[in-house]
Order: sequence, then structure tokens, then C-alpha cells
Amino acid sequence: MPNKTYSLAFLGFGNVGHHLARLLQSKTDELRDRYGIEWRLTGVATRRLGWLAAARGMDVSAVLGGRAESVARAEGAMGAWLSAARPDVVFEMTSLNPQTGQPAIDYIRAALQSGAHVVTANKGPVVHAYRELTDLAATLGKRFMFEATVMGGAPVFSLFRETLPASNLLGFRALLNSTSNLILTEMENGNSFEAAVKKAQDIGLAETDPSADVDGWDATVKVCALSTVLMGRPLKPDDVDRQGIRGLTGEAVRAARAGGHPFKLVCRVVREGGRVRATVQPEQLPIADPLANVRGASSIIHFDLDTLPAGLTLVSHDPGPDTTAYDMLADFINAVK
Amino acid sequence: MPNKTYSLAFLGFGNVGHHLARLLQSKTDELRDRYGIEWRLTGVATRRLGWLAAARGMDVSAVLGGRAESVARAEGAMGAWLSAARPDVVFEMTSLNPQTGQPAIDYIRAALQSGAHVVTANKGPVVHAYRELTDLAATLGKRFMFEATVMGGAPVFSLFRETLPASNLLGFRALLNSTSNLILTEMENGNSFEAAVKKAQDIGLAETDPSADVDGWDATVKVCALSTVLMGRPLKPDDVDRQGIRGLTGEAVRAARAGGHPFKLVCRVVREGGRVRATVQPEQLPIADPLANVRGASSIIHFDLDTLPAGLTLVSHDPGPDTTAYDMLADFINAVK
Repeated sequence: MPNKTYSLAFLGFGNVGHHLARLLQSKTDELRDRYGIEWRLTGVATRRLGWLAAARGMDVSAVLGGRAESVARAEGAMGAWLSAARPDVVFEMTSLNPQTGQPAIDYIRAALQSGAHVVTANKGPVVHAYRELTDLAATLGKRFMFEATVMGGAPVFSLFRETLPASNLLGFRALLNSTSNLILTEMENGNSFEAAVKKAQDIGLAETDPSADVDGWDATVKVCALSTVLMGRPLKPDDVDRQGIRGLTGEAVRAARAGGHPFKLVCRVVREGGRVRATVQPEQLPIADPLANVRGASSIIHFDLDTLPAGLTLVSHDPGPDTTAYDMLADFINAVK
Repeated sequence: MPNKTYSLAFLGFGNVGHHLARLLQSKTDELRDRYGIEWRLTGVATRRLGWLAAARGMDVSAVLGGRAESVARAEGAMGAWLSAARPDVVFEMTSLNPQTGQPAIDYIRAALQSGAHVVTANKGPVVHAYRELTDLAATLGKRFMFEATVMGGAPVFSLFRETLPASNLLGFRALLNSTSNLILTEMENGNSFEAAVKKAQDIGLAETDPSADVDGWDATVKVCALSTVLMGRPLKPDDVDRQGIRGLTGEAVRAARAGGHPFKLVCRVVREGGRVRATVQPEQLPIADPLANVRGASSIIHFDLDTLPAGLTLVSHDPGPDTTAYDMLADFINAVK
């Protein structure tokens, strides 16, 4: 099989984008030798840099080093950029809008219509336009991939797509918000809620405004993505019974752990008749529960399947921008192979 | 896509074979509707029944109920059976020979050469003939699949094949022998080693002669299969530094758990330069280790990958003949889809 060179474009170029560019560089030989995949970077778009495009490829190290002066900028916006960069794959890494998924949905639609596969790290389009974008991609012979959106470093979507055929997901229990789990662990270690939030911010895990994490919004959006894609039951954030960890005190968290029933921010989806019931809330778990022993920034999901009566559990340890970048690389390879 | 009817043949028809036949029956509509797969059972071979073959298909419920009198028997042996059953897929479920992998290797070779995919639940051929059988299958445009051989109910091989592209497995730590883990759990609960073995035998988990489990042979063969397939480092049982749980007393096991460092039969493979070092032995693990909290018959594996710095963990809960049967069904679908 002859090698094929893929033109790649990055929509957004923050922490994850930098990791992905470096991962592509370090895996260049392996991609060629194992998959016949060669690549060039033909587009980078950010608010700061504008719409950079170079159909023959740009100097990745220069772009990574912030030296992109010599790269041409497309006039106008997305359409001109796609025409100039002519990407085979667009990596969509813009900010999450949990309420509407916009403008990422419009970006992804345009990228697919230009003839590119789309790999996103953005949960919004999955929750708000999964069916539309998946159908559009299929119509165009392209793929819409989003492994990076839930549990970085654990292939939850491709697990079902590729390795668990003829299985039906009946429900799941999970810890999906790294920041909340880290905060609870820090509170168990003696910190107040506020000090624990500060720690999560200091290591770059929590935002300046931590409400997306501590009020359960991030976990809720992930629950919606999983239910929509893996259970065929579309859920919107408002459909989830949501409560964050803001109401917990250090004393309560430490007493719960000492009593053998630690607090966790538990995501739960169960089928009830033809519908699903979804909750995100602090729960006290018995210490023998696999979820009770996942500490720090790690995540866990336990799947209930018709084919595996006692279920299957995945644990992702200390996910970060590097594991998110790997999820996107895996999607790229699986989209084109 | 039009439906295709696959002729299936079972080599061996014990507990797993019965579960697989019933699973195929219960998934018949789903296989047709989701994958365009129809099936008929054209061959069943066991020591007791002989070489049953019916190219037009046999009554599965009758065979399951032990009423196979009306089905024709092929004269001679394997070759005549394959000619009469004309299978598209052979499910190989004969007994393990850990030292040589025979006669299963010869069976699988013959089945591939007859034009069938082979799905096996037998570790012997993976450890002793993985490269030969995989290459032979590829040459013939067929597949040699073996998801059921390690960690029933957790798709470890297809996980790497399908969901973790461009990843390199650097090593792993695992609990792979259900019987040993159950015995250790029963000893923690107050039983002697002998009483715990008896319990494992009573529920059908341990054999009359429990040495394959309690002396670490089963875990060792699984370690060899994983290293051979996932790390590209062929290992034979004698290459593994092996010690079972027979030397542990109930007192020692209970004291270890009470002291916060419980005993587990730990499988470990690490790369050292160009080689691998493999051990199977009882180890005391800190209670915060994910392996320390897996009780009863469940299994766990933690993978160290170059792409996921902190690794990825899978837990399979209470595997049994039903989960092994599902692994084989998944291999069948993945082989033909």
C-alpha cells in the first residue's frame, strides 16, 4: 500500500493543540511505517494568530515556537481558510459552550462539507448535534470523531464501536470530572473546600471560575454525550438531575472517608422502561466499590452491558492535555485507516 | 448490503460451547439487523458425540438438548468433518495443553486451510504458534482470533488492535487467574487454603486437580500470550519466573490484609533493554493500588503505554463461561464485518 500524505488543520491551538502537534512530530516515523500515513500541517486558526493557511505545509516547529510570521493568513474567515488549507482532517479544539455547542457545530459542519474528516475534543457538538453531524459525515463519506471528549486516555467510544459488537449498554456509573475528584481527595487530605479548589487551580486543572467543575456542569455534559452516543438516548444538560460538590465541607468529606463511605461526584445513567434516568451528585460509596478508590484527577467508568452480566470497568489515570492529544491522534488514524 | 449466512462449526462443546450456542440464538435478530449476519450450525465435534456435520445446518436446540441422533457423523476425523460441515468459522474450544498447544494447533491449521476463520478460547495455540497461525490466516485471507483466551469479558486484544493505534505497550501488571484471586479472598474471609480451594471447586471455578491455578500455570500462560501478541515479545511458560499461592497460609493472608498490604497473585511484565522480564508470584500490594481492591473471581490489568503516561486499567467482573462465549461472538463479528 503506498503512503498517503494527509493535510491537517488545527482549529484552536492551545495546550491540547500544542501537545497534539508534538505528538504528531514524535510519531511521524511510526505513522509512516505502521499505517502508511504521512502528514503536513496546512492550517492553524486561533483568535490570536488569525486564520493561518499553507496548502503545501508549514514549519511545525516554527508554529509551535510562536514563529508563524511567514505563514499566509486567509482573508475572511472559516470558508476562506478551508479553501486555502485544503485539509483532509480538521482537529476542532475550540472552547466548550455547554448550552448550545456553538460556534463549534457550525465549524464542524463547514469542515465536513469542505471534504475533511473532523476530530473534535469539544463535548458541545456531541451533545447538541451528534446525530446531525454523524449523518452529514456519513453522507459525505467522512468521519465525525470525538474520543477526546470524555475520559481522556480511555477509549470509551471506540471501545463500543470496535470491541463490543452486539452489546447493548444498559447503564453506567462513573467519575468523569477530574477536578471534582481531585478536590474531594485534597479535602480528605485535610484541606478546606476553598484550599482544595486553589490547589486544583494552581496545577492548571480548574479554571479561574471553577463552577463548570464544582457545580457538576462538566460531568453533566459528559453524561449527556455518553447517553446520546452509546445508549442511543439523547440527553441535554437540563435532563440531568445535577448537584455539584460545592455544598460539602472538609469535615463532612473527612468523616465520610474515615467512616468507610467516602464522597464521590457520581455520574449515573440507568434505563427505566423506554427512557433513561441520569444523575450527577455527591454520593457516599462503600469502600469496596471500585469507584470509591479512584483518587486524585483519575476517572473511572463502570459499564452495565447485556452481554457481560457483571459489567466492565475502565480507569484512566491522571488524564491531561497529553492524553487528550493522544485520543485525537487515535481518532485520526482510525478515521483514515 | 445483503445479508450473508455463515456456516459455524464448534470444535469442542462443553460449558463455553453451550453458552455460545445459546448466545447466538438470543442474538439472532440483532446480528441480522445490525450486521447483516445470519448463521447456521453445520458442525459439532466432541469426544462423546463424534464428528457431527450437516452442511445445511442442524437443529441447534436439539443439539443443546443432547438430541443429536439424527445428525450425520463424518467418517474419519477432522478433514472429513471440515469437508462435510464446510464452515465459514470454526470455534475452537478444546482443552489446553500448556506445554505444546497440541492438538489444537493442528486443528486450527486445518480449519484455516479449509477456508474458515478460526476463533479460539484456547491459550495454547496463541502461546505456541501465534506467529505461524496469524501469518497462515493472513496468507489465506482469513482471521485467527483469540479474545476469549485472556480476561474473559474484557476485550484486551481488540482494545490494542482497534482502539489504541500507534501505542506501544511498555509493560503491564495484572491479576489474571480468577481461581487464585477467589481463593485469596476466601482466605481473607477466614478460610484455610484447603477450604478455600474446596469452595472454588464447589462453584465450578477450580478443577479437581487445582495445580494449574494455584501453582500459577494458568496465569503464566496468559502472561505469555499477552507478551507475545501485545508486546511482540514471544514468551514461553519456562521464560516466566513463576510461583503460585500454595505456600500461603490463611494466617499470613489475613495478617497481610489487616496490615493494609494484602497478598495478590501478581502478573508482571516489564521491558528491560531489548528483552522482557516476566514474573507471576504472590506480592503484598499497598491498599491504594488498584490491584489490591479486586476481590473474588474478578480480574484486572494495568497497561503501561508510551502514549498514556499514567496508563490504562481494565477490570473484568466475575468472568465465566458466559463472558468467554461473548468474547468469541465478538471475534466472529469482527472477523467477518
